[in-house]
Amino acid sequence: MNANVRETLFRQAKEWVLEAGSTIRTKINDPLTIDTKSNPNDLVTTMDKDTEAFFAGKIRETFPEHFILSEEGFGDELSTMDGTIWIIDPIDGTMNFVHQKRNFAISIGIYHDGIGEIGLIYDVMGDVLYSAQRTKGAYKNGQEIPALKTDIPLKEAILSLNHFWLCENRLVNEKEMQRLVKTVRGTRTYGSAALEFAYTAEGIIDGYLTMSLAPWDIAAGMVILEEVGGVTTTADGKPVNMLTKNSVFTSNRCVQKEILNDFLIKGKK
Amino acid sequence: MNANVRETLFRQAKEWVLEAGSTIRTKINDPLTIDTKSNPNDLVTTMDKDTEAFFAGKIRETFPEHFILSEEGFGDELSTMDGTIWIIDPIDGTMNFVHQKRNFAISIGIYHDGIGEIGLIYDVMGDVLYSAQRTKGAYKNGQEIPALKTDIPLKEAILSLNHFWLCENRLVNEKEMQRLVKTVRGTRTYGSAALEFAYTAEGIIDGYLTMSLAPWDIAAGMVILEEVGGVTTTADGKPVNMLTKNSVFTSNRCVQKEILNDFLIKGKK
Repeated sequence: MNANVRETLFRQAKEWVLEAGSTIRTKINDPLTIDTKSNPNDLVTTMDKDTEAFFAGKIRETFPEHFILSEEGFGDELSTMDGTIWIIDPIDGTMNFVHQKRNFAISIGIYHDGIGEIGLIYDVMGDVLYSAQRTKGAYKNGQEIPALKTDIPLKEAILSLNHFWLCENRLVNEKEMQRLVKTVRGTRTYGSAALEFAYTAEGIIDGYLTMSLAPWDIAAGMVILEEVGGVTTTADGKPVNMLTKNSVFTSNRCVQKEILNDFLIKGKK
Repeated sequence: MNANVRETLFRQAKEWVLEAGSTIRTKINDPLTIDTKSNPNDLVTTMDKDTEAFFAGKIRETFPEHFILSEEGFGDELSTMDGTIWIIDPIDGTMNFVHQKRNFAISIGIYHDGIGEIGLIYDVMGDVLYSAQRTKGAYKNGQEIPALKTDIPLKEAILSLNHFWLCENRLVNEKEMQRLVKTVRGTRTYGSAALEFAYTAEGIIDGYLTMSLAPWDIAAGMVILEEVGGVTTTADGKPVNMLTKNSVFTSNRCVQKEILNDFLIKGKK
């Protein structure tokens, strides 16, 4: 993608993200209609749908040739990554949105012919915008995020993961995950994949892993991570496919190979 | 404790907490000297020690008849809860302090003849003060925190706990903990017991449990929780002893008995 085209697109996307965030903040204490999707804990609210509809409307009006891949049904059915695709999670961390009224994010990645060009993760209630354009660095509220450290031993790393992967499950050997928890310095769970990518990019955690995520959970985060020298793969070390669900492991480079080889690949079912 | 005496003490403690927090914010980017205590992940910094020394100095000067129970060695050796005792964690969540430069708290509980009279938890970088006086309600930055809900079913609860308790350990049957994780709606780990108490008091999580904590991790939180209708016990449902380490389970009343009876007491080793 041409750098000027990307810059224009970046400014436009950022403006819409901030506008959508402002609307959510205004309505944060309004009564919510909460439904469930794939299971009783997979929540969706009118705010998720309204926010996605806002983005879809703006994009279709302004960039009718672009595609949309999104969580709540306003996007396109896509079978290739050709062209320019907006990959949107209107509210990442809906459980936090419902129960906490904070700690959720708007996540937008813009990909062109399969390459991540723009990433925006907006912590709405904290009013913190993480952003990146490919090859232009990553920023937190306009301030450049330094490159990630390259000298953190695994035993001093902090990892984010859901407790669920330490219980018996279909996707990973829980014993390997338990061994990983006992190897690192500390573990955290924040309940928003987009924010967990952003925190990894900031270096306040050293990695985030999960066995099943949709493209809209990670599209923005991957662009941002790449700009600070991080790396994102599936849990078996392969490239992430933006057209399907994936296992995902994102981290700084110093702990990446060790966690991948000694725990994740060993534990994969 | 006389209500006027308590009010004076509360104002004084609050003033010192805000002053200590302001000092920490000023120095947050200074180089740190980091040592370890009981194990390589039990961190302590000069900031922990300096902050505790600040409180100990102020208390000994202003209230020479009071006692201090604290983490970093400036307190007294106590064998009873008689008299007025300041129970202090100068930086709760030292790992977050070191790795994240946020998500840590100053925690001060003031107990009189064994009864928790005052609780102050200060999220230093967020500049959010959670406070309570016994029978006077709990506050977040001066705004009263409403009583906790009484109608949350366990399957819709969010619990905070460390991943470690899902791994084989000396204190609790990890299988029961795994079953609990699969029963509730969601789990979180924030890495500061004081903040996890504060979040439970706010109702953004429904409970927090851990198998081993010191009095200074929980003294302030217990006072605050009590004021919003929450309850804190050991993991076998007994009263917490402020002179020893304890297992701790704090939660709203709607999930308390069920988690205690169906998971924690069953799982206790």
